[in-house]
Formats: sequence, C-alpha cells, structure tokens
Amino acid sequence: MASVEVATELDRANTTGEEMMSFISGLYPICRSITGEGVRETLRRIAAHIPLTVTEVPSGTEVFDWVVPQEWNINDAYIKDSSGRRVVDFKASNLHVVGYSIPVRTRVTLEKLRSHLFSLPEHPDWVPYRTSYYNQTWGFCLSDRTLGQLKEEEYEVCIDSSLKDGSLTYAEFLIPGQAPEEVLISCHTCHPSLCNDNLSGIAVATFLAKALNSMSGLRFSYRFLFIPGTIGSITWLARNLENLGKIKHGLVLANMGDPGGFVYKKSRRGNAEIDRAMAHLLSGCGEVREFEPYGYDERQFCSPGINLPVGCLSRTPFGEFEEYHTSADNLDFVRPEALDSSLLLCLSLVEVLEGNTRFVNLNPMCEPQLGRRGLYRTTGGQRSREDDLALLWVLNLSDGLHDLLDVAVRSGLPFELIRRAADRLTGCGLLSPALQS
Amino acid sequence: MASVEVATELDRANTTGEEMMSFISGLYPICRSITGEGVRETLRRIAAHIPLTVTEVPSGTEVFDWVVPQEWNINDAYIKDSSGRRVVDFKASNLHVVGYSIPVRTRVTLEKLRSHLFSLPEHPDWVPYRTSYYNQTWGFCLSDRTLGQLKEEEYEVCIDSSLKDGSLTYAEFLIPGQAPEEVLISCHTCHPSLCNDNLSGIAVATFLAKALNSMSGLRFSYRFLFIPGTIGSITWLARNLENLGKIKHGLVLANMGDPGGFVYKKSRRGNAEIDRAMAHLLSGCGEVREFEPYGYDERQFCSPGINLPVGCLSRTPFGEFEEYHTSADNLDFVRPEALDSSLLLCLSLVEVLEGNTRFVNLNPMCEPQLGRRGLYRTTGGQRSREDDLALLWVLNLSDGLHDLLDVAVRSGLPFELIRRAADRLTGCGLLSPALQS
Amino acid sequence: MASVEVATELDRANTTGEEMMSFISGLYPICRSITGEGVRETLRRIAAHIPLTVTEVPSGTEVFDWVVPQEWNINDAYIKDSSGRRVVDFKASNLHVVGYSIPVRTRVTLEKLRSHLFSLPEHPDWVPYRTSYYNQTWGFCLSDRTLGQLKEEEYEVCIDSSLKDGSLTYAEFLIPGQAPEEVLISCHTCHPSLCNDNLSGIAVATFLAKALNSMSGLRFSYRFLFIPGTIGSITWLARNLENLGKIKHGLVLANMGDPGGFVYKKSRRGNAEIDRAMAHLLSGCGEVREFEPYGYDERQFCSPGINLPVGCLSRTPFGEFEEYHTSADNLDFVRPEALDSSLLLCLSLVEVLEGNTRFVNLNPMCEPQLGRRGLYRTTGGQRSREDDLALLWVLNLSDGLHDLLDVAVRSGLPFELIRRAADRLTGCGLLSPALQS
Repeated sequence: MASVEVATELDRANTTGEEMMSFISGLYPICRSITGEGVRETLRRIAAHIPLTVTEVPSGTEVFDWVVPQEWNINDAYIKDSSGRRVVDFKASNLHVVGYSIPVRTRVTLEKLRSHLFSLPEHPDWVPYRTSYYNQTWGFCLSDRTLGQLKEEEYEVCIDSSLKDGSLTYAEFLIPGQAPEEVLISCHTCHPSLCNDNLSGIAVATFLAKALNSMSGLRFSYRFLFIPGTIGSITWLARNLENLGKIKHGLVLANMGDPGGFVYKKSRRGNAEIDRAMAHLLSGCGEVREFEPYGYDERQFCSPGINLPVGCLSRTPFGEFEEYHTSADNLDFVRPEALDSSLLLCLSLVEVLEGNTRFVNLNPMCEPQLGRRGLYRTTGGQRSREDDLALLWVLNLSDGLHDLLDVAVRSGLPFELIRRAADRLTGCGLLSPALQS
Repeated sequence: MASVEVATELDRANTTGEEMMSFISGLYPICRSITGEGVRETLRRIAAHIPLTVTEVPSGTEVFDWVVPQEWNINDAYIKDSSGRRVVDFKASNLHVVGYSIPVRTRVTLEKLRSHLFSLPEHPDWVPYRTSYYNQTWGFCLSDRTLGQLKEEEYEVCIDSSLKDGSLTYAEFLIPGQAPEEVLISCHTCHPSLCNDNLSGIAVATFLAKALNSMSGLRFSYRFLFIPGTIGSITWLARNLENLGKIKHGLVLANMGDPGGFVYKKSRRGNAEIDRAMAHLLSGCGEVREFEPYGYDERQFCSPGINLPVGCLSRTPFGEFEEYHTSADNLDFVRPEALDSSLLLCLSLVEVLEGNTRFVNLNPMCEPQLGRRGLYRTTGGQRSREDDLALLWVLNLSDGLHDLLDVAVRSGLPFELIRRAADRLTGCGLLSPALQS
Repeated sequence: MASVEVATELDRANTTGEEMMSFISGLYPICRSITGEGVRETLRRIAAHIPLTVTEVPSGTEVFDWVVPQEWNINDAYIKDSSGRRVVDFKASNLHVVGYSIPVRTRVTLEKLRSHLFSLPEHPDWVPYRTSYYNQTWGFCLSDRTLGQLKEEEYEVCIDSSLKDGSLTYAEFLIPGQAPEEVLISCHTCHPSLCNDNLSGIAVATFLAKALNSMSGLRFSYRFLFIPGTIGSITWLARNLENLGKIKHGLVLANMGDPGGFVYKKSRRGNAEIDRAMAHLLSGCGEVREFEPYGYDERQFCSPGINLPVGCLSRTPFGEFEEYHTSADNLDFVRPEALDSSLLLCLSLVEVLEGNTRFVNLNPMCEPQLGRRGLYRTTGGQRSREDDLALLWVLNLSDGLHDLLDVAVRSGLPFELIRRAADRLTGCGLLSPALQS
C-alpha cells in the first residue's frame, strides 16, 4: 500500500489545499439543487479530475417510499422596486431564491410579499439558505438589513424557473482493488453557493479519489458517490440493493473545510471497523460521537433495513457553526490548510483499512528471539523503543482474534508503527495472515 | 393509556398531596405492629379508598424458614413514679412501648428499670422506635431528657399487652388489566406512629391504586400489597409461589414524603425493565443505586430463589435521615408536595411500563417520506424539532430489538415524546408492534 | 486455612522484614548472571530456608525458539592505569563488568577503551548495570565521575571470565496441597548486586514459601520458581509444557522492597481470578494496570501460545524508579517494612485464592431467619453491622454463579469478612459449596 508515501508527498508539496480551494472557487457560483443543470455542470468539473459514470433517473421513478421529483432549473429571479431597481437579485447570489421555487411573474404589495421573504434578524447582513422541494411554493431569501429597507410599495416579482419532468443526476467513480469488497465515500452535490456545506466535501472526495486512483495494489475497491442529499442516496440505494453486501466500510464527507477540529459520527452499528479506525485516528485530536438518525446521507445508509457500516466525518458538524446554511458559508470561511488536513486524515483512514489484517503468531510459545533476527534494538541502534514495543504487541496479540487495529488501540501506538512491525515479523516468517473467520 | 392525562389532572388540581396528608393524619395515632388490631384498623381505612381483599394467616403457620408469630395487641402501658404520675405514657405516643413487649405489671427500682429503657442521647427530645419480635422481652422508649429526670425511686410499670395465638393480617388489591401479567406495588403496614416510614408509602400506594382503578384500558394488571415488613412479604410469597411468574415488574414504596430527592434502588437483576424505566425517569433528577440485600421487602422479593424484578423507590432512604425511626418522623416531617410528586413519579412509571413496546419499522429501507404524511415539521408548523427527532429515532431503532424505553434512553428524549411518535407512526402504517420474542 | 493467623503472627512479630533484609544482605555481593556459579551459590542460600529441587540444563539445549547459552563465570576484572592502580575494579562491585563479557587481557589507549565504557551522566556517582548475553563483546560500567577523571594514557584491561559449555541452573520448590492444581510464584535470579530488582523478589518468594510450608490444609499446591529472567522461564516452560494445565493462578514477584505503593499488572487474560483477587486486595491501596507484553517473565507466561493466568506484582515497577539498574539499587534502597508488607500482601492473596469458593444458598426462598440461629446481631451483641451485611450478601449472591470474591467486590466488604460469613452459614447448614461447573 502506497498511501503513506502519497500522504507524505502531499504533505511535502503542501499545495493540495490550494488546489482544492481553487476547485471550490470554480464550483461556488453554480446554482445547484437536487436536480437540474447546476448538478450536471458540477459533475462535469469533477470529471476534469477523475473519470465519472453519470446516471440520470427520470422524474416519477419510484425509489422505496419516495418518487424522483420533477427537475428544477432557473435562469433568473429578482424583486424590483417601483423604480425598477433589483432590490433582490438572483444574479448577485443564487441563495436569494428559495430552492425549487415555482415560476412566478407578478406584482405584489410589500405586505403580500412578506410571507415569501426570509431573513436572519440575528445576522442582519447574511442571506439564509432555504429550499422547498416537496411543497410547491416560491420565496426569496435576503439580508435582514435589505428587508428593513424595503418601502411600502408595489414590487415586481419574477422567478424565471422551470419545474418539469426531467431527471435526477448523480455520478459514481469506482476504483477497482484486488478484492471486490468496497469502501464507499459519499458526498452531496445539491447545495448552491455554500462552501463548507458542501463544496468542501466534494473537493476532498474528488482529490481523495484522484490520489487513490494513482496508487497501485489497493486491497479494497473504492466507490465514490456524488449525489444530491436524501433523495440522491435513497435513489442510489434503491437501484443498488443487490450490491450493498460488497460495502465493507463507508464514510459520508461533510463540512471538511472550516477551521474547527474533526468530529466523527459513528455508524448505526457503533462498533464497525470504520468506527474503530476513526476512533483510533482521532484519539487525542478529535471527537467521536454516537450515531443519531439526523444529519447527512448516513441517515439513509444507516436506516434499519440498510444498516451499512457508514459513518460521517466532518470538521464542525452541521448546525454547529453560525455560518451554516447562510451566505457567510463562503470562500472566506473555508481554509486550504483545513481541506488539506481533511484529505490527509482520509488517506490515513485508507491506510488503516487497507492494512488492518488479523495475523497469527507462528511462534506463539514464549517470545521468539528477536535479536538473532536483527529485529530488536541493539546497543546504539537507531530503532526506537516504540518499534520494539510494536513488535512485542503484535506478537502477543496475533492469536487470530485481534486485528492490527486492535493492537494499535490496545498498545496506544500509531497504526503505521504496528503495521510496519507486522510487516517485519511477516518478513521473518514469524507471522502469517489469519484465515478469514 | 390515560395515565398522562390523569397525571396532568392531578398536577392541575394540586390537591392530592393535601388529601394524602389528611389520610396520613388519620392513620398516624394507630398503634400498628406486624400483627394485631392496629393493622386491621389501618386496612379498614385504606379500604375506604380502594377495595381490599384481607387475608388472615394463623399464628404457627410455617412460611419458608419462618413461622407466623403470635398476635400482639396492646391497650395501655405506662411507668408511674412514686407520686402516681405517668412519667412515660403509651397514650401520649405508642412509640413509648417496645413493639411486641410481653405483658408486665410490676414495681421496680430505677436501677433495675434502666435495662428496659431506650433513649437517644444525641437527640435528647426525641423518642426512639424499637421492637423485639422474636425475642420475648419488654421495654420502654423515652426521650433522653425524660430519662435524665427520673429519680432514684421505685416505679410502677405496666404493659397491658397480649401475645396470643391469632393471625397475621395483610391485604391485596388487584386491578385487572388486558393481560394477566402483573405489576406489583408493595408497602409495609407494620410501623406505628411514624410518618415517612411508612405511612407515606401506604398513602402513595393507596392513591396510586385509586388513580389506576379509575382508568380503563390498562395493559398490565396491578397488584397492590399492604403487608407487615419481612414476615408479611415472606408469608405472601410462601402462599403465592405458583403465581410469581406473572409478576413482570415490581416496586416497593418507602419514605415517599420527606423533602429529599428520589432514590431508586435497582432490583437484584440490575437490568430489569423497571430498573431501566426508573433510571430513565430519574435521569437528571434523582439517584439510582445498585441492589443490596438490606432494606425493605425487596430483600425477600429479591432473594436468590425468588429473584423478582422488584426495585425500591424512596425519597431519602431508610437510615439516611436523622428522624428515621424516631418520634421526629412525624406529621411535620412529611410534606404534601413531596407526596404529590412521589405519586406523579409512580404514574409516570406506569406510563412507561404500559407504553413500552418493541416495534418494527415497516418501511426499513431508507427513511419514509414523512412530509407527505403530514408527520414532519413544515415551514412555520408548530411542532418542535424534538418531535421530528423522536420520529426519526423511533423509525431508526424499531428493528424488533429495541423497545421504546431503549429509544428514549438512546435519544435522550422524554419517554412520552417517543411514545407519541410511535403512535403517530403506527397511525400512518409505518410501524407495527413486534412479535413477542 | 491458617493464612490469616500466620499473617497476624508475622505482623505481631514484626521481625520478618528484618530477616528478609538480612537474607538480602548475604546475597548482595554474589555475582549472578543468567548462568554460572553465582546462581548456584544463590540457590544454596535459598535452600537454607526451603528445600529446593535444582535443575541443570546443558548449554546448546533447544528451548522453543531459543538455545541455552554457554555458561559464564568470572573471577576478576579491572582497568589499571599506567601507575598500576585499579581505576575500575570488579572486586569493588560486580556491576563494573558488563554481564557475559568475554575474556580480555590487553593494553589499550583511553580512546580505544571508550567504546567499552558505560556511565550515567545524569547520575555522576552511580554505576549502571549492563549485559550482553547474545552479542559477544566486553565492557565495563563505571561512574561518570570516574570516567571524567581518566587521563589520556594507556590502560591495562583484564576480564578474567570464561564462556564455556556448561549449564543453565534453576530451582523449584513444590508445596503439595489437597488438590493437584497449582499456584505458581516466580522470581528471577539473574541480577548481580541489585537489591530491589530483584533480591527483594527472591526474599519475599523464599519467605512466602517458608510460611506456606509451615501451614497444613492448603487447598492448592504451590510451586515456587527461582529462574534466570527470559531464558530461564522459556527453558522451564519448554520442559514443563505438559503440566501447564495444572497452573490455576500465578504471580511474578519483582521490586518488592522499595518504598513505593503496590502495582499489580494483570495477566494477558485480564479477567483471571488472580486479576480479580489482586484488584480487590489493592482497591483503595494500590494500582492495577492492564497487561502489556513488556516486563519480567510474565512476558513468557503470557505469550499467546502459553497464556497462563499469571500477573506481576511489584511496588514501583521496573524503569519507574531512578535507581533501577544502577548501583543505587542497593541495600539502602530496600526497606524491611516494605518487604514485610509485600509478604503480607502475598499471604492475603493466598488467603483469597484458598478461600474463594462458589456456594449455593440452601434456603434461597426469602431470607432464612438468622436470629433463631444466633447468627444475627442482637441488641447489645458485639458483632458489627458489617458482619450482618456480610451474611446477607453471601446469602443473596450464593446462587452458584458468584464466588466469594464476587461477593466481596460487589459488597465492598473485605474478603475475610465474607469468607467468615460463608463459614458461619455453612456451619448452620444454610450454605453448601457449589458443584464445579
């Protein structure tokens, strides 16, 4: 597995964060929703980095309890005052229009308009983000300051949108490994000009896929999903039920670019290998939370009939940063170094998943004589005491019951040290992979 | 189940505490012991509120390792000084006579009398409570101040008691529910003029029975026991062995009226449903303790051969308040509002036990579309975010393995919110009770 | 079991600590290593207290992955300066020579000598302890102060040692009990003039053996091992594989004489009876640590193919005191009262292991009437409330599933109180030992 080397390389280059930032800047102005041209354009830009298989699912298709909705597109939208000035303008920010607003062209008094206007009094300069996917209506979002300046007069309201039969668009990229078992990495593609939620997730997923695609010898196959939230994962699951058994580990990526620390939310299973792996990686440098049935697409992946080992990795979780779902979740809020360390953490996770094997100590009666094999620290040698301890821990716990992640957790030593010790012991014929149980 | 409504009603009326207080005041002067007329009179007063089935078990009856003792009754008792003044007088307080004292009529010096006198030097104005059921003797309890004032002279001692073959008296009230499975509520009836221990338990049990008796549609049958401590529960268990399998949950009520917070002592099983229910109800507002084989009648219900899921609920536990087993455990020590909240907690427990079902999510593949069914918060709707979360938690954990109490504990949401969510989901056909495992 | 009495007697006499101290003083000057005459002389001195069976295993014998090394002996060693003065002298302290140094007789410059000299700059007056068992070389250890005073001149270097085919020597003492099941007590005998590590272990093991040998009616057989570290335990295990199944509990004793508190390191199993016993004994007065595969001979006893229930008891663990493996681990560092309390703790452990039985309550339906049997505290009796509680706990948990150690842990009462309660209940016919499961 070459992930360590790649991670080190990325780290040395220190340019990936800036590349991801620039990728996000390109995606930022596009008006995305759960369907429509904005999603397709976004996928085209991702496809400039990694090959994508795009699927179009027609409106009206039944997916479990849901139905794929009509496709929504929008050209323009505004509120003009009596002087003809655009006081609210979709062209200035796509957040100004409530997502999935039906087409409107009318003149209304401020009084009648008010029930269609949404602002954030507690942040007078920010524009909120709102949608109404399954309840046909229309609306505008604007800053509370702008709202306060609207005079009592008649306004011209225009939403040049369309809501018609079309399709829901999602994309996949599968990197085949030595085994058919898959690691699923999923992020949502349905948010318009919002950076942390979730252009950051799209960027980290894209660059992670790019990095893995350049490696050879991966054990697992890696499947990347770029899907609209909720309806996208439901649609994908409904169409791929027979293949879900192949998914051994999965991760939903969200809010990967803010300056906060890492938070991992466990899968519904609570003790899946990915839960243990993330807990180990974040021990001392991040927070691990129990599963709850609210959040991103892990809600669907972890519904009781699906129950996949899929967790959710974020920096600051949704709803816990002030900028969440507002115009302040912009290009300034997301940091290249945060994106970079998110990507590195994902690569470390890959390293653990790839390297986590159950071994059998072939010399289980007492310790083998490590010195004779040149494995043990000798006077003045340059190997550290931790290397020696890693050897002893791997030997002691390699009884076919513990995997290397168990050894890392139990010993408190980094996984890569444990993995390296296992490789050295295997090289000497002292260790052998356990048969699958 | 109507318990929520009843609880609310009680709460609104805010008169039950005063009613229980008045009930206790009537019971207070009666001289109770483990047998005798005091117990019978107490049961008659309870029977004014709820129908009782009274059982008389003859002296000499063998009950497991024990034998029902002779019946004890008392008319009068006193110590008169040389002037003929009653310096200690049973008529002033029945605590003055050691319970089960044999009849005495004699004249003794203070010196000889002393070994029959008990006082509390650390509380010079309080009279202690003492008994000697299985060791034939006699004695008086008095305040240490009175004891100190006794002069060296001869005293006339009279205990006009009788200890004869008779019977042990206990009472039951069974409220039949839809199922034969029972909830057992037990309290002891053997203490004389002591209010918290345990007229408070008798009062809360009586008014709980009264409240449940007025409800319809109870799932469980509720059996109330009014029994003398230790020998009463042993006698009842010995006579009802073949029916113990019907008892699914049980609670011993004791010290329900003092101003302290709630303490629940778990059943011997430690993880019984009632243990989980009380832990959930008291989370953040009470203390839960592990079982120990000392205390009230849970000692017998939780002996290893019986091992029923019976816990003990109290406010301040026995021995942990200064007034315990003294004349200071009087009508001033017990508070109507404490009795009231004890009763409300018992009703909340009934609500949990009645409503705690294991459900199966009938749409387990991804989330169902709640909005379409009007279940989900819509813009401007008045349902709270907690209601939405409750729906998601119930759906997610309804896999036939978790009951609603598990859902409440796991989500940190109140049981009634979870129960209401389950009802709404059942109403929509999204949920169905699981088959019994 | 008479261990309580013995412990009490030892405690009263308060002389055993001094006796162990004097025993250690006699052993201190001897130059021990993993083989050789020093070990044999040490075993002869132990044999003055307890009968030993000594085993000699020839050099070249294969023991699992290892080979018994050549035997090492040494007569003299020194470094003489140009004036003929011994600037480093084996006769002053055997720590001055690196253990297993090959014979040397040469003249070298200080520059060439330096790579063979070891000192401790952070403790300029202490001499370190070094060995090189499996890497043929030679060397001297000296204080950093002495090293600093060496002038640039030619030195005469002499190590009058021999490294020849011979044997590895270890000793055993088996005290037969009523059952063939064994308790293994092991300590290492390979350290030269070092007191805490591990003459203290040798002394406590010897005096523990002496104490147990004087008792009658022991349930278990007790096997004491006096072996060189690592190669000794490997050799013993290789030669006794077929008998390992008899070992029910085991303890490695190390660093028993320093003034620090007790630290118990659990066996690899982590929940062995000895782990539970030591945790109970040290609760509130010592530290319990999880197993790790580094340390003393528990490394071998707890290798995955051996996996015996053997823990390690020490006061301050190896490497955690400054004096560890230096000349400062001398006769001043070890304290008679520390040795004494270490021995008493070992005797308490024996008491727990001997007395820890699983009982069945023969009157499991409700409590038996203890008062009738004179078991229960009566008014003015001298038994304590703890004695009563111990009776109730033993009765309640004697369901054939809990052993007395469980009862002690669960109740928080001392094991001896629980054991005594069980004896009293057995005496009344209320309790009976459970059949072995």
